[in-house]
Amino acid sequence: MITLTSDFGLRDSYVAQMKGTILSINPKATIVDITHEVEKFNIRMGAFMLSSAAPFFPKYTVHLAVIDPGVGTERRAIVIQTKQTFFVGPDNGVLMLAAKNQGIEHIYQLANSNFRLPKVFNTFHGRDIFAPVAAYLDSGIVPSEFGLEITEVVEPQFVSVNSKYDLLTGEILHIDSFGNLITNITLQEASFANTVNVKLLNQKLTLPFCKTYGQAQPGQAIALVGSHGFLEIAVNQGNASDKFRIKPGDIIEVVFRV
Amino acid sequence: MITLTSDFGLRDSYVAQMKGTILSINPKATIVDITHEVEKFNIRMGAFMLSSAAPFFPKYTVHLAVIDPGVGTERRAIVIQTKQTFFVGPDNGVLMLAAKNQGIEHIYQLANSNFRLPKVFNTFHGRDIFAPVAAYLDSGIVPSEFGLEITEVVEPQFVSVNSKYDLLTGEILHIDSFGNLITNITLQEASFANTVNVKLLNQKLTLPFCKTYGQAQPGQAIALVGSHGFLEIAVNQGNASDKFRIKPGDIIEVVFRV
Amino acid sequence: MITLTSDFGLRDSYVAQMKGTILSINPKATIVDITHEVEKFNIRMGAFMLSSAAPFFPKYTVHLAVIDPGVGTERRAIVIQTKQTFFVGPDNGVLMLAAKNQGIEHIYQLANSNFRLPKVFNTFHGRDIFAPVAAYLDSGIVPSEFGLEITEVVEPQFVSVNSKYDLLTGEILHIDSFGNLITNITLQEASFANTVNVKLLNQKLTLPFCKTYGQAQPGQAIALVGSHGFLEIAVNQGNASDKFRIKPGDIIEVVFRV
Repeated sequence: MITLTSDFGLRDSYVAQMKGTILSINPKATIVDITHEVEKFNIRMGAFMLSSAAPFFPKYTVHLAVIDPGVGTERRAIVIQTKQTFFVGPDNGVLMLAAKNQGIEHIYQLANSNFRLPKVFNTFHGRDIFAPVAAYLDSGIVPSEFGLEITEVVEPQFVSVNSKYDLLTGEILHIDSFGNLITNITLQEASFANTVNVKLLNQKLTLPFCKTYGQAQPGQAIALVGSHGFLEIAVNQGNASDKFRIKPGDIIEVVFRV
Repeated sequence: MITLTSDFGLRDSYVAQMKGTILSINPKATIVDITHEVEKFNIRMGAFMLSSAAPFFPKYTVHLAVIDPGVGTERRAIVIQTKQTFFVGPDNGVLMLAAKNQGIEHIYQLANSNFRLPKVFNTFHGRDIFAPVAAYLDSGIVPSEFGLEITEVVEPQFVSVNSKYDLLTGEILHIDSFGNLITNITLQEASFANTVNVKLLNQKLTLPFCKTYGQAQPGQAIALVGSHGFLEIAVNQGNASDKFRIKPGDIIEVVFRV
Repeated sequence: MITLTSDFGLRDSYVAQMKGTILSINPKATIVDITHEVEKFNIRMGAFMLSSAAPFFPKYTVHLAVIDPGVGTERRAIVIQTKQTFFVGPDNGVLMLAAKNQGIEHIYQLANSNFRLPKVFNTFHGRDIFAPVAAYLDSGIVPSEFGLEITEVVEPQFVSVNSKYDLLTGEILHIDSFGNLITNITLQEASFANTVNVKLLNQKLTLPFCKTYGQAQPGQAIALVGSHGFLEIAVNQGNASDKFRIKPGDIIEVVFRV
């Protein structure tokens, strides 16, 4: 099984060119799109999309991600072998969030020209290098065949969650198409809380801490643990992003209250 | 075979999380997207999308639909067995239009925790409850395994077509991406008509009754039987929705003329 | 394997209706979307999308394309057999760019009503005629079964590249979602150039001739050979279409300089 993540969009044929390349090498591959609507060149968003979906796929899945503003430059192409699965893409951090969650075992640079299309264009390694590697991995080629093992790779930049007394400081990782603000604050520990004091940019809010969206009135803002396991700020049947004018990367401060 | 209908959009990884869950349980499942661009929380639109596509799928297909504003609340989760196929989703009406067209045989509440992900989040039953049930149904588990049979379920709200002398009154079910106004008026009987008098909000129109779009001049408004078998108001190579400023749920009155 | 190209968009269920129809006839078909976001009724864009993706698919792939403003009128429905593959769709030029690149061997008119849905709607031949034909072709039916061989078909209209001394005149074939201006000028011969003088509408530009986007500064306009093998005008990590306000079909003049 092979998953695809990119910033190519669905209007052009770039995704189909990658799928055709994979299926020409490995006609039995099952290909699943994670998303192709990552914001152009947004490596952080690609990293989060991949990390949010990868845990739900079977063992030995090959995850291919192409958010690749440096295509054709000196940036390296890599395959990462984890305890469960494989990640293929550029060495710019897009693979690392998902891969580290699974436990990285080996990283290899993609250098073996036997596993590429005959003509490699400088502007589309997704099709000419990464897609063939994914197809061969899925058909059983071991990752050490593709090139030498390396150790130093680029990491994506996320703010760490900081706790000081009862104040947690994190960031907005992602805003989904419902307008939910997804933070990087994991939340097993706050199940006793009833209320959350939130600071978002200059806005100070006191929100009920709910179990699900429908527990609030339509239009009411709430805090809850979302399906990613992270603290989310949401508006029931509304759009928290429109309401609070927040963007990914913005800092959030929270204090839980009984 | 499993189909998916939702309001998740394609920008986030929610659809992929469902697909990964299905394929982890049932790696050979064929998954087909109906649409994920249902307007957020619009159960009526989801119901129409599902009912428009379901008749074209093979027997024993499992149709999974998640337009689910009440996720995690007291609303029930159900599977419907019809004469041909299965429908899985929330008990909010989204499944009923398609299911009733096929003839409902049994409805079961989804209660058996053996057929769920180990951890169920209150905000994403599509992934944690519905996707596993669809995967197990597709692999041959009989629907009575999932829970007790029930009889009272929520119905979606559509206006019935009303006829009084030669005046038919219905509603706009859906406006497609071409801008065609799709009504709920079925039309075997009007094949003799040449002209249709239409009242749309305050606009009174006399439209030619055509066999296809290209029979009219580009930009000309027409009435015709569309591919859903319903009366449609269209503009050849143009956009009737932009021209007449109509929205789904608006009432339409029509009189056919020879 | 069957590919699909259309202007149906992904919001409606039209694409799913075609897929259900194919899978009802041929449950083992592998279906790959090329794109469904072709601009409504834009045959030229559909032709380019199909021609850009088709070369990457395996032998015997069936390519189905439905950009079909004349559906239900006298325009013919055809299947084209090339040296490698099959193309199915309306006789309006949408198939011809891709098919000619592969070498056309035979063209047949789709006339045999054994290979259609029982009820053919005038407004959706994609589902009722083309999808069944694609499904049967993929299952091994030979194309001469569908109707009589024909020779005269409609060609899409593209400007030929014109060269006069060192001046090449072509057109903008497509603007991709990155805003890159893709011309119809093929470029093996200019590998020695360092600079390109470009005239786009009334704008005269002198651009560096690069190997890839990342060779320029972010925001800098460049010329390069894109992944289609054509001359492209791009802005590194920016949007050339927004910057130069160009649309498909606009004329471009270029002179390469050492």
